[in-house]
Amino acid sequence: MKAKVHITLKPGVLDPQGKAIEGALRGLGFTNASQVRQGKVIELTVDETNAAAARTRVEDMCKRLLANPVMENYDIEILD
Amino acid sequence: MKAKVHITLKPGVLDPQGKAIEGALRGLGFTNASQVRQGKVIELTVDETNAAAARTRVEDMCKRLLANPVMENYDIEILD
Repeated sequence: MKAKVHITLKPGVLDPQGKAIEGALRGLGFTNASQVRQGKVIELTVDETNAAAARTRVEDMCKRLLANPVMENYDIEILD
Repeated sequence: MKAKVHITLKPGVLDPQGKAIEGALRGLGFTNASQVRQGKVIELTVDETNAAAARTRVEDMCKRLLANPVMENYDIEILD
């Protein structure tokens, strides 16, 4: 099964990458862009036939490696 | 309006970050994970009231700064 994990910084956590992008956008004349935040998407294939089992497996991966639960939220999407 | 831009490497483009994640997952015992690819998500607020105008603006930002159209695909989602 294919899975997609969206990892975003928790609200309130400072996002220097987002700030840098916002500054660069303003420099290019996009002055109406604000609240820019950058996150990650990880796409992977899990060798499971059951969607619930795949989700549990991916959740375990998030907790152990993919996300930093102190600073980041993650959202798992099982595709097919 | 809030917009979300998903930026992923084009198929065929080597993804060393994805490979590193895959190696680390295997090292932790997740041997059934494969085809790991990492992408970016950029969330931003655009000061436009019209969804079509916001999309055009964000598309322009993607072409000029956010994505590298040679190696990356991008997908724009206008939220509200």
